[in-house]
Amino acid sequence: MKIVIAPDSFKESLTALEVADSIEAGFKQIYPDAEYVKVPMADGGEGSVQSLIDATQGSLIEVEVTAPLGNKTTAFLGISGDKQTAFIEMAAASGLHLVPFTQRNPLKTTSYGTGELIKKALDLGVQKILLGIGGSATNDGGVGMLQALGIVFKNSQGNEIGFGGEQLQQIASISTEHIDPRLTNVTFEVACDVNNPLCGELGASAVFGPQKGATPAMVETLDQALAHFADIVEQQLGINIADKAGAGAAGGMGGGLLLLPKTELKAGVQIIIDATNLAEKVKNADLVITGEGRMDAQSIAGKTPVGVAKTAKQFGKPVIAIVGCLREDYNVVYQHGIDAVFPIIRNLGTLEETLAKGRENLTSSAENVARLIQIHMVIN
Amino acid sequence: MKIVIAPDSFKESLTALEVADSIEAGFKQIYPDAEYVKVPMADGGEGSVQSLIDATQGSLIEVEVTAPLGNKTTAFLGISGDKQTAFIEMAAASGLHLVPFTQRNPLKTTSYGTGELIKKALDLGVQKILLGIGGSATNDGGVGMLQALGIVFKNSQGNEIGFGGEQLQQIASISTEHIDPRLTNVTFEVACDVNNPLCGELGASAVFGPQKGATPAMVETLDQALAHFADIVEQQLGINIADKAGAGAAGGMGGGLLLLPKTELKAGVQIIIDATNLAEKVKNADLVITGEGRMDAQSIAGKTPVGVAKTAKQFGKPVIAIVGCLREDYNVVYQHGIDAVFPIIRNLGTLEETLAKGRENLTSSAENVARLIQIHMVIN
Repeated sequence: MKIVIAPDSFKESLTALEVADSIEAGFKQIYPDAEYVKVPMADGGEGSVQSLIDATQGSLIEVEVTAPLGNKTTAFLGISGDKQTAFIEMAAASGLHLVPFTQRNPLKTTSYGTGELIKKALDLGVQKILLGIGGSATNDGGVGMLQALGIVFKNSQGNEIGFGGEQLQQIASISTEHIDPRLTNVTFEVACDVNNPLCGELGASAVFGPQKGATPAMVETLDQALAHFADIVEQQLGINIADKAGAGAAGGMGGGLLLLPKTELKAGVQIIIDATNLAEKVKNADLVITGEGRMDAQSIAGKTPVGVAKTAKQFGKPVIAIVGCLREDYNVVYQHGIDAVFPIIRNLGTLEETLAKGRENLTSSAENVARLIQIHMVIN
Repeated sequence: MKIVIAPDSFKESLTALEVADSIEAGFKQIYPDAEYVKVPMADGGEGSVQSLIDATQGSLIEVEVTAPLGNKTTAFLGISGDKQTAFIEMAAASGLHLVPFTQRNPLKTTSYGTGELIKKALDLGVQKILLGIGGSATNDGGVGMLQALGIVFKNSQGNEIGFGGEQLQQIASISTEHIDPRLTNVTFEVACDVNNPLCGELGASAVFGPQKGATPAMVETLDQALAHFADIVEQQLGINIADKAGAGAAGGMGGGLLLLPKTELKAGVQIIIDATNLAEKVKNADLVITGEGRMDAQSIAGKTPVGVAKTAKQFGKPVIAIVGCLREDYNVVYQHGIDAVFPIIRNLGTLEETLAKGRENLTSSAENVARLIQIHMVIN
């Protein structure tokens, strides 16, 4: 028997690898001799770098970068075991959590630090960069990131513009003359789960600006700034980023990345599925087990378990999800390839107590799922 | 496919029948055409009368009786659908919950009301009485109950003694001359899950007295009183109740009941298993599902799920438990016939919220158990 265990992390409790280990431990109580293939998964959001490191026997590298407000911070990137691929979460360098609540202001915040992480990846000689762009503090169209990579944005006085979304209004010229030449050979796969355009009512500023601290007036300023940026890009570089679905992701980072030579915006979980060769691993499995911290109706929108289930169902494999908790509306997942769902909470307690028991509860649940499978019932 | 659903109640949330209905509802989502046999179970404790009524299509009858402190209260008994058997919980008439906390005093409390319930059962013409004796407020050796049934206890002045455990010290003579003659034809099955003797360190007073409000001094008085009672019973009636295992149950009620013609002390869950013909129902089942509100290491000591599992395992049937919550030490149940256990909590909340969602959570868990069974996996 071959069992593929491909869960997401349980946020605030266990990494995806720890989840997979716990599930394996429970199953091994009943099936000690089965073949277990653990594939730590993610959806492009928080925890994706760790999961990809774990999935590829890679390693984590710390890098000092520029935080969203211009100060320095220590961020990280991952590199695959074969050294060919870098894994970056934009939030590590440019995340909202790096900006104190009272200082959140997307007029000022820059994505420069994410560019520095990319530069570090280039230094390491990778062929491919997988980039998750969730959780950013910025609304600068990725201009800060592009600046770090050598693209020069000048105002009408011929001076380089500064950091922050509001600076985009002043862009008069864009020069790619000094762009890091190594970018020509590197493919970007950008985990992008939203289809928002760069500007307008469904654009980056209107939809995501407020959660980054933008007032209605700031939203208007930022929206105009991004529109101006897109105009200049089209005029001077011949690239249409305004209408591209996903360009509005991460404060326009989706759009800014399109200025790089080889960028592809993809669903986050699909990037991880591809990077981990999940299809290859499940195609001769007898059972696929996935999981996430909380399953609800949102789980069908680009989250890990449904992504795993879709891959498994290409080969007609049964899929069981073991989850931290379940919202009442979770049951739509049944229509998306998940055959059965088991929450792991065994008794009431505080959130802290419950998170602390995550490993134990997971192992116990997995054991009982294995026990039920072992019953060998043939049902009419 | 035939599925027997034989759970206990979930205390403070759902009756055993409601639990069985909820499990059935979940399973029917996946197996609408299976044959479901619902057997509401109990272990002789709280909820046993309701479960037996539900299991036999019986009915509940209210009876005004004497409460432990001598005031009147409304208690109840159950009668089976075929009118042949009465179901009584001692606690309904003589329970600790009927005595305000500050007035708890087993020197004074009487089991007279339980005798009145028995008398009502005799009036109804039953052949058999199933009696659960948990949760009592009394330590009177069942003397109050016996008084209600016509046995006369007199002191050395020839006067009838009063109510309460301390009165037993004064017993000089016991007369069964006026005992209710209908008792000759009625069998008592007494649900008794403890093996405590009447007196001594492991006796009724020492072990159970304190939880009924007895101080150390009272425990000594009560222990001596029960010992005196046992002496007189042996001298005058030739019945040895002092050394009988279980005589110490319910403040010596176990011992007092031995003065009646046809009394058998049995494990509570076994009485319910016999009364519901559970063995007959499971012997051609494909699956047996049980459950209880909380499963822990104590669950192997006379609780419903393990009793059900033992019965099912006589016929080699698989047994799944679906439970309200699980203590960490629950896993000893695997060695007692339970094949797999699934807790129903889906997310953290207050106890009140969680109890209110009991039915929904149970149905969802049962559906997922059915879904996992449906996967039809053949495991090597």
